[in-house]
Amino acid sequence: MEPNVSNLNSHCAEIAMEVHKVVPPPHRSTIQKLKTRLKETFFPDDPLRQFKGQILKKKWILAAQYIFPILQWGPNYSLKLLKSDIVAGLTIASLAIPQGISYAKLANLPPIVGLYSSFVPPLVYAVLGSSRDVAVGPVSIASLILGSMLRQEVSPGKDSILFLQLAFSSTFFAGLFQASLGLLRLGFIIDFLSKATLIGFMAGAAIIVSLQQLKSLLGITHFTKQMGLVPVLSSVFHNTNEWSWQTILMGFCFLVFLLLARHVSMRKPKLFWVSAGAPLVSVIISTLLVFAFKAQHHGISVIGKLQEGLNPPSWNMLHFHGSHLGLVMKTGLVTGIISLTEGIAVGRTFAALKNYQVDGNKEMIAIGVMNIVGSSTSCYVTTGAFSRSAVNHNAGAKTAVSNIIMAVTVMVTLLLLMPLFQYTPNVILGAIIVTAVVGLIDLPAAYLIWKIDKFDFLVMLCAFLGVIFISVQDGLAIAVGISIFKVLLQITRPKTALLGNIPGTDIYRNLHHYTEAVRVPGFLILSIEAPINFANTTYLNERILRWIEDYEAEENTQKQSGLQFVILDLSAVSAIDTSGVSLFRDLGKALEKKGVELALVNPLGEVMEKLQRADEDHEFTRPDCLFLTVGDAVASLMSTVKGQSSSSHV
Amino acid sequence: MEPNVSNLNSHCAEIAMEVHKVVPPPHRSTIQKLKTRLKETFFPDDPLRQFKGQILKKKWILAAQYIFPILQWGPNYSLKLLKSDIVAGLTIASLAIPQGISYAKLANLPPIVGLYSSFVPPLVYAVLGSSRDVAVGPVSIASLILGSMLRQEVSPGKDSILFLQLAFSSTFFAGLFQASLGLLRLGFIIDFLSKATLIGFMAGAAIIVSLQQLKSLLGITHFTKQMGLVPVLSSVFHNTNEWSWQTILMGFCFLVFLLLARHVSMRKPKLFWVSAGAPLVSVIISTLLVFAFKAQHHGISVIGKLQEGLNPPSWNMLHFHGSHLGLVMKTGLVTGIISLTEGIAVGRTFAALKNYQVDGNKEMIAIGVMNIVGSSTSCYVTTGAFSRSAVNHNAGAKTAVSNIIMAVTVMVTLLLLMPLFQYTPNVILGAIIVTAVVGLIDLPAAYLIWKIDKFDFLVMLCAFLGVIFISVQDGLAIAVGISIFKVLLQITRPKTALLGNIPGTDIYRNLHHYTEAVRVPGFLILSIEAPINFANTTYLNERILRWIEDYEAEENTQKQSGLQFVILDLSAVSAIDTSGVSLFRDLGKALEKKGVELALVNPLGEVMEKLQRADEDHEFTRPDCLFLTVGDAVASLMSTVKGQSSSSHV
Repeated sequence: MEPNVSNLNSHCAEIAMEVHKVVPPPHRSTIQKLKTRLKETFFPDDPLRQFKGQILKKKWILAAQYIFPILQWGPNYSLKLLKSDIVAGLTIASLAIPQGISYAKLANLPPIVGLYSSFVPPLVYAVLGSSRDVAVGPVSIASLILGSMLRQEVSPGKDSILFLQLAFSSTFFAGLFQASLGLLRLGFIIDFLSKATLIGFMAGAAIIVSLQQLKSLLGITHFTKQMGLVPVLSSVFHNTNEWSWQTILMGFCFLVFLLLARHVSMRKPKLFWVSAGAPLVSVIISTLLVFAFKAQHHGISVIGKLQEGLNPPSWNMLHFHGSHLGLVMKTGLVTGIISLTEGIAVGRTFAALKNYQVDGNKEMIAIGVMNIVGSSTSCYVTTGAFSRSAVNHNAGAKTAVSNIIMAVTVMVTLLLLMPLFQYTPNVILGAIIVTAVVGLIDLPAAYLIWKIDKFDFLVMLCAFLGVIFISVQDGLAIAVGISIFKVLLQITRPKTALLGNIPGTDIYRNLHHYTEAVRVPGFLILSIEAPINFANTTYLNERILRWIEDYEAEENTQKQSGLQFVILDLSAVSAIDTSGVSLFRDLGKALEKKGVELALVNPLGEVMEKLQRADEDHEFTRPDCLFLTVGDAVASLMSTVKGQSSSSHV
Repeated sequence: MEPNVSNLNSHCAEIAMEVHKVVPPPHRSTIQKLKTRLKETFFPDDPLRQFKGQILKKKWILAAQYIFPILQWGPNYSLKLLKSDIVAGLTIASLAIPQGISYAKLANLPPIVGLYSSFVPPLVYAVLGSSRDVAVGPVSIASLILGSMLRQEVSPGKDSILFLQLAFSSTFFAGLFQASLGLLRLGFIIDFLSKATLIGFMAGAAIIVSLQQLKSLLGITHFTKQMGLVPVLSSVFHNTNEWSWQTILMGFCFLVFLLLARHVSMRKPKLFWVSAGAPLVSVIISTLLVFAFKAQHHGISVIGKLQEGLNPPSWNMLHFHGSHLGLVMKTGLVTGIISLTEGIAVGRTFAALKNYQVDGNKEMIAIGVMNIVGSSTSCYVTTGAFSRSAVNHNAGAKTAVSNIIMAVTVMVTLLLLMPLFQYTPNVILGAIIVTAVVGLIDLPAAYLIWKIDKFDFLVMLCAFLGVIFISVQDGLAIAVGISIFKVLLQITRPKTALLGNIPGTDIYRNLHHYTEAVRVPGFLILSIEAPINFANTTYLNERILRWIEDYEAEENTQKQSGLQFVILDLSAVSAIDTSGVSLFRDLGKALEKKGVELALVNPLGEVMEKLQRADEDHEFTRPDCLFLTVGDAVASLMSTVKGQSSSSHV
């Protein structure tokens, strides 16, 4: 379909009357630009905005409120809010106690450390945290990673004191790292864990965690110390003689009960207390059963005696030197990032539901300080836990006071109720963990990713397979590496599209997308859809020359009119660097040899500025080859040809 | 300045008649998309294009010509071309002989290896290479890196045989790596060395190389084995008692002579033979001087006896296992990449000058095979050398035959003339190297980078300082790291711009760039200038909400009309992933709570497709909130408001 050229021409001529020229952006000094750039990088949320135009006293109050959000909501706290918070606090405490014991075992730590970690950190968070819904405590994946990474160098069975010291030290470094990220406003680093990566990673970790529970669910005593799918399964099936039918029966019954409770709460969110209370009910019933039937003598292993009393100080247990420092710092880094990702995501999710804002960097400082304080009061890594926060939200929590209620309940437990856990069977803890991590396997999300973006699905699969077959840390590293590689590949091979005119308009769009669009004879109109930089200058040069060759090949076979103009639409070129600038010079020279003219359309502010500075001889920034829209460019260039041909006729 | 709304409205209403809808792109299967993607990634130059539609016999001939470019130009070779090539070949041979000896010394290898490396590799390149101007041989920077990396583990003085074996093995791995990059079509990896990185790196390396020459220029015998600026200068000034005035005088005179010759040739390119011949003239004169005055007994060190004869085979000297394998592979990788970068850049530069094309991946295979063959015939790493190729080009070389002439001349030297070099003083070799590397310090280019892009200048400075203060490899790694970090940062913090209407048109452009543009009351029009993906979804969400808050704040102070519509111009969003898709859902919900409507403008093919697949409930891909241009969107949304208000009046 040939466009009606004369019609197009007359249309263009009209527009040419009102052609708008491309101008350089208003001048700004390097310092100003640097300031804007730094502000957008580190303070995109502009946290100091509220201070503007306030008197000094008000500024101090605002600053105190900024650092301690409790000062913001505390003064308006009412009895009505307290009622809601007490209900929510007691509900999450009933979940926190069995979960705390279970997750501590997952991290190869004494069960009581899990309860310690549900006492101090929630209090710290209540003062510093800015989310109203987050419930704080240990989480499954960070526990798993902490335990498995430290076990590479130290055996938790033989060297239990050293192992505990390393766990507290790792917690300290995790906290230090988290708080630094927040203080340095580097929170965007956790954005590099994409959704796809996280879904794959979580599912893999859930399977690894569940496999570890086969030890207590089957009652095996000689269990492998490795984490991978293959060694665990081979260990399970090489020790069938150790399987205990009593344990298996008990575990199966309670697992079914817990999963049913979870199912009920998921179907009817109003019945949230069913799944929230089920773990505690299981613990109580199973403990009574063991006590009544003296089942500990019939092959069911129990937790055993637990120490009473509140968190002992542990700052003298922190390692800042010695042979394990490297391991401790690495463990702190990995668990810090992972738990931060969960904590921030939880905060943001519930903030969006209730329509308030959570400052990511501030939350990081809160979580970091919480872990630093925790590490010197016998706590291990904690964060905002997803399952617990969901219960908190459903139970009607209004402020962080629900965390305080939970902490007080745990305190009472630590002081008075510890002897009651002596006969709690380990198999129940295994069942509680499996029920908690099952929710991390998100098949609908995986399907959605498959539907939307196959490459993201690949990233997810790599994270998943890496975690279950290699190791938790390596799986994560592989997935992050692939995600970043994809982004770099997009930059190395930016898209170029051939544009055509949509008939009856002066709109130009991709010919392959808008099939009604038609080519303009004699013009090759290309849009470049990426920043032009060192990584893609060579490619773009080759690719554009190939477009021209393709045009010329068609010209010969289909007797099109000869190529006269190449128009590059730079609307989508958001940035350019020194290598990128040379593209236009090289391209201009190559085109000159072919007798073809190059025109640029709509270079954005920064791009325009750099082109001008690089092009002192005005090779490609002459006003007559710079246009604001493709329509302008076509009309204006077409009229020059007409002018020439008519003058040559005369 | 308020826009003339009624005028705008009537203008828009006209356009609204011919509003073009956004359509999804034509369906293509995943396999088709994957195929296109892989083709653009690995075969952007479409090398098989010429084979299309040819008969089988012709295809075989084309394939042979593709692999051996000599078959392409060989049959048309004429006596006239031979004459030009002989002149050029002899000229580069006169440069290659002294440079070969000098660079081999720079790599801590016996001088004769430098001559071997100027004999076999040029012959291989003449058959496989596709450039007509490149002259092949050892180069300064690859020599420096090879010598300094191997010296970390093996002393070239004590273990000279082992050192030689490692050098040949590194050459083998460099060749293997280069050929693999070419075969696997991964040539774009060298694009990650940006122009700025290279300029900084080259300048730093030139200084390091020159500092090393102080040993021979000052006649010091106990010289440090380190490469950094600080240790070398401290070594020089701690050994002032070893300085030999005879050596210094001789070195100074010849250095001045060589630099003057270089200056003359740079001012008048026609006098290229002055700088090309000067090294050989210096060698001859200085050798005669030493011989005549028996200066070797007066503190001037000489090369000493050199073996006669052609390259001995060295394939039995290659190491494929043992304790040094890691070092050898790493050295091969680094020297391979660096020499490849120089070789490809040289080829492209001269191809652009003479207006022919060089296939980067094919060149990589040629250079790789050349080094693999070289490693088994006593040659070390070679590539297309910049200075030598420039002389070759200026001397009128027409084809790769000039490389053959050079190789034959070197062969004659190896067979007959080696005894003549016995009395050549080392100080001359130092002067030749300094003269050769001075040209690598490109101050005008550095100034241009400063002018265009301050961040690129920083990258350059890091490469430079890293090389001279830390080490050659680390400086390079730091610079590449910073370049990639910059690209990632651009993606993490994409630009968003507020658009306004350019009066009298339906063009919308950045308000900060085009100061005549005016806002449309009730509308917030933003353009997003980057692919939307996991690394920037959170940021974009926060940033867009801040734009809205800013608008609302202004609304209160300046009594603007209330915000009704947010229009996002996606023309510059070249790609989107699963995380990115959620941005629109989250944003849509946040806006709904404020009673503001969201409209999307011009999503590109891939983006449109993914949005539709993710949005089965049609939350943000309804036809009434998708527009092809901003002008359409404004006109159409404005008419809905009018319609509503008029109907409510009725």
